Amino acid sequence: MNSFVPVDPTSDFSIHNLPYGVFSDVDNNRKRIGVAIGDYILDLSAVAHLYPEEVQETLTADVLNPLMGSSRLVWQAVRCTTQHLLFEGSDLDKNEDLKKIALIPQSSAKMHLPAEIGDYTDFYSSIHHATNVGVMFRGKDNALMPNWKHLPVGYHGRSSSVVVSGTPITRPLGQTQPVDGADPVFGPCRLFDFELEMAFFIGGPPTQLGERITAENAFDRIFGFSIMNDWSARDIQKWEYVPLGPFTAKNLGTTISPWVVPVDALEPFLVDNFAQDPIPFPYLRHQRNFNFDINLEVAIKPSNEVETTICKSNYKYLYWTPLQQLAHHTVTGCNIRPGDLMASGTISGETPDSFGSMLELSWKGTKSIELNGGQTRKFIQDGDEVIIRGFCEKNGIRVGFGECSGVVLPAVPFSE
Amino acid sequence: MNSFVPVDPTSDFSIHNLPYGVFSDVDNNRKRIGVAIGDYILDLSAVAHLYPEEVQETLTADVLNPLMGSSRLVWQAVRCTTQHLLFEGSDLDKNEDLKKIALIPQSSAKMHLPAEIGDYTDFYSSIHHATNVGVMFRGKDNALMPNWKHLPVGYHGRSSSVVVSGTPITRPLGQTQPVDGADPVFGPCRLFDFELEMAFFIGGPPTQLGERITAENAFDRIFGFSIMNDWSARDIQKWEYVPLGPFTAKNLGTTISPWVVPVDALEPFLVDNFAQDPIPFPYLRHQRNFNFDINLEVAIKPSNEVETTICKSNYKYLYWTPLQQLAHHTVTGCNIRPGDLMASGTISGETPDSFGSMLELSWKGTKSIELNGGQTRKFIQDGDEVIIRGFCEKNGIRVGFGECSGVVLPAVPFSE
Repeated sequence: MNSFVPVDPTSDFSIHNLPYGVFSDVDNNRKRIGVAIGDYILDLSAVAHLYPEEVQETLTADVLNPLMGSSRLVWQAVRCTTQHLLFEGSDLDKNEDLKKIALIPQSSAKMHLPAEIGDYTDFYSSIHHATNVGVMFRGKDNALMPNWKHLPVGYHGRSSSVVVSGTPITRPLGQTQPVDGADPVFGPCRLFDFELEMAFFIGGPPTQLGERITAENAFDRIFGFSIMNDWSARDIQKWEYVPLGPFTAKNLGTTISPWVVPVDALEPFLVDNFAQDPIPFPYLRHQRNFNFDINLEVAIKPSNEVETTICKSNYKYLYWTPLQQLAHHTVTGCNIRPGDLMASGTISGETPDSFGSMLELSWKGTKSIELNGGQTRKFIQDGDEVIIRGFCEKNGIRVGFGECSGVVLPAVPFSE
Repeated sequence: MNSFVPVDPTSDFSIHNLPYGVFSDVDNNRKRIGVAIGDYILDLSAVAHLYPEEVQETLTADVLNPLMGSSRLVWQAVRCTTQHLLFEGSDLDKNEDLKKIALIPQSSAKMHLPAEIGDYTDFYSSIHHATNVGVMFRGKDNALMPNWKHLPVGYHGRSSSVVVSGTPITRPLGQTQPVDGADPVFGPCRLFDFELEMAFFIGGPPTQLGERITAENAFDRIFGFSIMNDWSARDIQKWEYVPLGPFTAKNLGTTISPWVVPVDALEPFLVDNFAQDPIPFPYLRHQRNFNFDINLEVAIKPSNEVETTICKSNYKYLYWTPLQQLAHHTVTGCNIRPGDLMASGTISGETPDSFGSMLELSWKGTKSIELNGGQTRKFIQDGDEVIIRGFCEKNGIRVGFGECSGVVLPAVPFSE
C-alpha cells in the first residue's frame, strides 16, 4: 500500500517509518505532536478525533510523554491508525479540507524536543570505541576495564542540556591541564569533539523506586530511537573526570534528532545480537534479538564549504543491547519515567573509517582528516556544522531518522 | 517578636526559620506549599490571599518550583509577609476561623518532595572526606587527585530516585568483585552505607544553554538548603565506577529532608569560607562569605532499639562553597532550571567522630562502631533507620532542618 502523500524513494519518512516529533509552524506556534511522512508532517492534534477515544488526549499533548507513558498496545493501535489514515483512499485522503489543515510541509515547521526528558543516561556500549579509547589512554593490554564485559558501563548525564537538532553549540571555556603534572590553565576547549550515538526513549508507566526490570522484560519499556551527538570537550574531560566521571565536559550540550522512530518500524531491520563472552548474569540475558542494522554517517560542513562524510558506522556494532542497558540501569532499584532518555555511547566499528569520534578518527590528534574543499581536521573547529544521519534499508523499504546537526560557535570570553 | 504559634526553644522551626515544604494531610490529600512553625505547618494555599497579588499563584502551586523560579526579591517579600502573619497580634492571629483552616499539626501531615527536581548533581567538596577516601584507596601520598583543589569535583546524579525523608530504601542487588582480579558475583550489597550531605535548590528563572554564572553572581541563584542522605552501595560502586563514575551504586535512592531552609534564615550563621590554596581561577572567586555553621548529626536506630548518634559533623568543613559549585557547574555553558538540586558530597570533619559515612567511621570495615543497646556496626544492616539532623544555634536563635531519615529494607531476590 502507498500513501497519498508523495514519498520519494530516498526519503527517510516512508509509510513504513511514521516517526513521532513535536513541532510548531509559522501559522501556529503551539507545540503539537506530528508524524513525518515524505516532506510533510501529519499534525496529530488536527486528526486526533479519527483515533480511538482513549488515546485522543495523548495525541493532543505538547510533548510525547503521555503517549510514551501508555503501553505498547496503545503505541501499536496509534501507529496502525496513522498508517491507515495515510493510505491512498483513506477517509483523510478524501477530506481535502482536513488534509489542508493536517499536513504541514516540514520546510515550514520548527522542531522541538520530542519529550520532557526526566533523566538522561549515557552508556558506553561499543566495544570498538571502548577498546580504541582504552588503547590510547592505557595501552593495548589494559584497553578494556575488567568490568566492561560484565555490565553495560554507563553514567548519569544532564537532562537540561539535551537540545534538538539545529541548536548551535558554543565552544566551552574550561579548565585543562595541557602538560601532565603542571598547573591547569583556563580557556577555550582545544579538543572539541562529537560523539556518534543513538538513544532510546523510555515508555510505559513510571516504575517505583526499588522495582527492577530484567532484560527479558524490558522490551515493552522501549518506545523508540533517535540519533544523538554527545558533544565532548576532550581536554576538559581528561582533567576533570577522575574519580567521579565526565561532568562539565559533557553538560555543554547534547543534540538529538527531532524524530523518534518507533521500535515497530525497526523490526524489519533486526539482526543478531552481538556475541557476548562471558555470558552475562541472568538479569542481563534475553532471548529475542534486539540489535538493528542501522547505517550511521557523520559529515562535517565547515562554514561556506561543502560537507564531507568522515565516518560510516552502524548501530549493530554495539556489544550491549538496550534491553540489557535498561536491565542494568534498574538492577539496584532505580525507578524510570516515560520520556527518560538512554544513549548508546559512541558507536564505532572495527575499521578506522567507521570510528564515531574525532578522537578516534584522528587517533588522539596524530592524524589529519581531509575534507572535500581542501581543509583538514583533527578536532571540530568553530563554524563547523556536524551532521549525523541514520537509515535502515532492506527489500526496498527505507526507514530513516532524519538529521541530528549542530553548528559550533566560537567561545565567548568572560566580560571583565 | 514572638509568634502566636507556640514554639519550644528546642524546636527546629522558630519564627527565624520559616522553611518551605510540600505537604498533604488526612483531611485534604491535595499537595500544598507550607511553612513549618513550631509543631505546625502554615498552609500557604489557605492564606495566599494575604500576600501581594503577584505571588499568590506561586503560593498555591503544588510544588515550590514557581516560587523558586521567581527572584530573591520575591523570596524576601514572601518571607517577610509570612513572618508578619505569624507574629502575635497579626491579622491571622486575630482570625480564629482562618487559623483553624491554615494551621495544620505536623503530626497529621504527610510530607512530599518539595520540588520537581529537573536535574540532580552531587559534588565531592569536603576535603576531609576526599582525603579519607583517597588514603583508603590510593594511599596517603596520592590521597587527593591533582584536580581536587582546582575545581569542585562533581558528577550528575539521578533525579528520579531522589525521595523524601521517611521513604524506605531497599538493599540493592548488584554486581561486585569481592576478590580483586576474580570474576564478579551477583547478590545483595554487603557494604551498604549512608552519606551525610546537604543540598541546595536552584532559584531564579531558567538559564539558556551556553550561559555561565560566575561565583560572584551565583548568590541570587540559591534558594535554600535541605539535608541529604546519599545512600551508597560501596561494593557495587567499587566494581562499576571505572572509568565513568558511580552509577547503579547511587541511583537506588537519595533521601532529602522535606523542609527547604531559605538562605535568609541561615545568614546569622555565616562563617568564613574555607581557606583555599591555591587561589582558584577567577570564575570561582567570590568576595562574600557563603559558608555556614550548621551542626550535623547522624544516628542509627536498629529496629526495636534506641538510636545512637554515630557522628557529629558541620557544614562549615566544606572546602568549596555552593557559589563555587554552581559557577563550576555552568562554566562550560550548562543551563540550570529552578528546582535543580545540587548536593555537597559527604561532609566529614577532621576528627574520626565527625566522619560522614560508615566507610570512614569503620575505616573500610576495619573498626566496629558500638551502638547503645550493645550492637555494633561496620556498615548499615537491614532494619536500621538512618536519621540525619541539622541545626544552627547562636544568641538564642535556633534554625533547624528537621530530619532526613530512611529505613533499610532487606534485599528482594529475583523471583525465578
